[in-house]
Amino acid sequence: MTIALLTDHYELTMLRAALQDGTADRRCVFEVFARRLPTGRRYGVVAGTGRLMDLVRDFRFPEEEVAHLRERGVVDDETAAWLSSYRFRGDIDGYAEGELYFPGSPILTVSGTFAECVILETLVLSVLNHDCAIAAAAARMVTAARGRPVIEMGSRRTHEEAAVASARASYLAGFEYTSNLAAGYRYGIPTAGTAAHAFTLLHDDEPAAFASQVAALGKQTTLLVDTYDISQGIRNAIAVAGPELRAIRLDSGDLSVLAQQSRELLNSLGATDTKIIVSGDLDEHAIAALAAEPVDMYGAGTAVVVGSGAPTAGLVYKLVEVEGRPVVKRSENKATVGGRKTAIRRHKPTGTAIEEIVVSQGVPDHRLGDRLLQHSYVVAGEPVALPTLEESRAHLRACLISIPWEGLKLSAGDPAVPVTVVPAV
Amino acid sequence: MTIALLTDHYELTMLRAALQDGTADRRCVFEVFARRLPTGRRYGVVAGTGRLMDLVRDFRFPEEEVAHLRERGVVDDETAAWLSSYRFRGDIDGYAEGELYFPGSPILTVSGTFAECVILETLVLSVLNHDCAIAAAAARMVTAARGRPVIEMGSRRTHEEAAVASARASYLAGFEYTSNLAAGYRYGIPTAGTAAHAFTLLHDDEPAAFASQVAALGKQTTLLVDTYDISQGIRNAIAVAGPELRAIRLDSGDLSVLAQQSRELLNSLGATDTKIIVSGDLDEHAIAALAAEPVDMYGAGTAVVVGSGAPTAGLVYKLVEVEGRPVVKRSENKATVGGRKTAIRRHKPTGTAIEEIVVSQGVPDHRLGDRLLQHSYVVAGEPVALPTLEESRAHLRACLISIPWEGLKLSAGDPAVPVTVVPAV
Repeated sequence: MTIALLTDHYELTMLRAALQDGTADRRCVFEVFARRLPTGRRYGVVAGTGRLMDLVRDFRFPEEEVAHLRERGVVDDETAAWLSSYRFRGDIDGYAEGELYFPGSPILTVSGTFAECVILETLVLSVLNHDCAIAAAAARMVTAARGRPVIEMGSRRTHEEAAVASARASYLAGFEYTSNLAAGYRYGIPTAGTAAHAFTLLHDDEPAAFASQVAALGKQTTLLVDTYDISQGIRNAIAVAGPELRAIRLDSGDLSVLAQQSRELLNSLGATDTKIIVSGDLDEHAIAALAAEPVDMYGAGTAVVVGSGAPTAGLVYKLVEVEGRPVVKRSENKATVGGRKTAIRRHKPTGTAIEEIVVSQGVPDHRLGDRLLQHSYVVAGEPVALPTLEESRAHLRACLISIPWEGLKLSAGDPAVPVTVVPAV
Repeated sequence: MTIALLTDHYELTMLRAALQDGTADRRCVFEVFARRLPTGRRYGVVAGTGRLMDLVRDFRFPEEEVAHLRERGVVDDETAAWLSSYRFRGDIDGYAEGELYFPGSPILTVSGTFAECVILETLVLSVLNHDCAIAAAAARMVTAARGRPVIEMGSRRTHEEAAVASARASYLAGFEYTSNLAAGYRYGIPTAGTAAHAFTLLHDDEPAAFASQVAALGKQTTLLVDTYDISQGIRNAIAVAGPELRAIRLDSGDLSVLAQQSRELLNSLGATDTKIIVSGDLDEHAIAALAAEPVDMYGAGTAVVVGSGAPTAGLVYKLVEVEGRPVVKRSENKATVGGRKTAIRRHKPTGTAIEEIVVSQGVPDHRLGDRLLQHSYVVAGEPVALPTLEESRAHLRACLISIPWEGLKLSAGDPAVPVTVVPAV
């Protein structure tokens, strides 16, 4: 619960001072963007906006929480009264979930009074910084897997609720399954999983464990064969389940060598249709390195839930316009441009994206092949119906096809699509 | 809610097979430990156990969630019935929150039937892997700060609920404040914060913003002086608030140079008691580099909530004993030892820790200066009263004093205290 307290203290002290001095009602525009991509990345992936809109809709200050803030001296009586009647009545526009972004892309724009917008800062950034980081890492893994399915199994390596959001973000990015049951329950994402080493260790021997699993789950299951000796594990698996066994899983060792040996052994046992699933500290580079091996599915855990080296997207939430006037912090990078932005992505006739044009307080020239990147999320406080997670997933797939091919390389390089930000005239 | 679904699919398929084959009731012991510390680290910090015990107490499968699992085919009728009546009735023992750990330390031991223990795996690991990672990073920052207070302000850079847990873990590690209001509400942690650049930009000019803030919050506030020109910002701050101003904050630029210049300017304006707070991408190394500068408080954000290079603690939950018999996955590191462990830490008469002794299925010789490291968390399903967060915080402070001095170095090195694991006879 406590959605409204997922907020930084300073937002309420700013609110308090602004209510007192009369600036709280000034019309403001806040913008979410990244100054740069994480080291080595060529694109970012917008993720979490669907989750965020549910949270914004429910962002209210219950009586008990207001009383707590009042007692602790965080707010005074006037601010407490204001919070008690708060709901967001402004507008939110932004890039679609599953859209790509680059440095300077205005991925979310929140407009309304200063007061109603400023107190959403932390929630907006927490959701987007987390989910975008996971989705970008996951998208690279999907590219590296070259069409082979990937299952997300990293829940245990991240905060228990971040795990659910990670499952959602990696499914958006093209993963096929998650191990996380809450993600299945909340978002309808397909879940998968069969057994851990503990299940084998629990039994008197490996054949007993395999027999039990097959009896309970059928031959369309995956047997984990590396608890003791892998070759013997595979022989035991086929002896118990027969060549109709759906899959074996390898979770340790040199997966490249083991996948080859396992394939040969399975084939020699007649189990030519039995799949090989590999897991164990796989990131996009490890997945890419297994491209030539007889692997049928990848399990990715730690690397995806920690963003594979970039655990946060580095997005910021900046005030860019007050009462129609562009504002900008002067000590920043000179390139920062104030004002509400409108963004389009320009494409070649072939469909390849070539440039993103972001115009402050205006609208870019619209040519054939241009695509408007911003959509309404909330209008005058009312949520707009959003695409489904499946639709967002398809959108990302299409976006990744649209960027120049070198944008999909795993190596470090420039952003796949350059962004030109045009200041207000 | 949905605590019980913060679980991996395979835990329920293992449960299903074990219920069917009769092994579900075998008495088991699962152990949480780290095979290694993150690169560069000399100790780990146990954090999150208090939070975990609340979740374990409430770990139940509501009817609607069981129905969902049944419909999706994750469980059969027998397993569904078992889940509906589930509550943990076993024992949990472990290291105190705030205790240090090293590779091989059995930081948590969960005992009971296979069925009741196996389904806690993901929840246990999610909480501990996250909170331990944050606490370890935060503890290094506190060491680097050499007694100067540190405020945690990283909520926006991590998942919204991970933010609350991060605030708790960094307070445990010795931070003085957090920006996160939910952490104040749930855990009683002191919160702090005053204003962002947006507050200055909202106003017609900087003096107007400062005057508003001082009018609302008094002179015991912190003015953010780097929105435009820092020197002018400091002059404006003192002109508005007088030399009684509590503090200024610098959030950008070369903090080393700026802190010196700001101190000189403040002194020249008679504001010799006005503090200087610095923030902006500070990690333990950046904090250490500011040791000689006139800085009074540090704000740490991104680095602490992403574990400063180690976003997950790498803890595992392994079955180590079945019906009194030690078990171990053979293909692992030979050093892995099965069986329930008992751990002590041995100290010199001066109080310095010199060794941790971990004995499988036995009790270490107890000498003068030895300290038993494990305590009861849950006995036969009943939670044991835990230390308060303040007590755990004091415990960590004492533990950090007890390790050899080189254990506190920020550079890479061996674990501060060696662990000897003695197999069962």
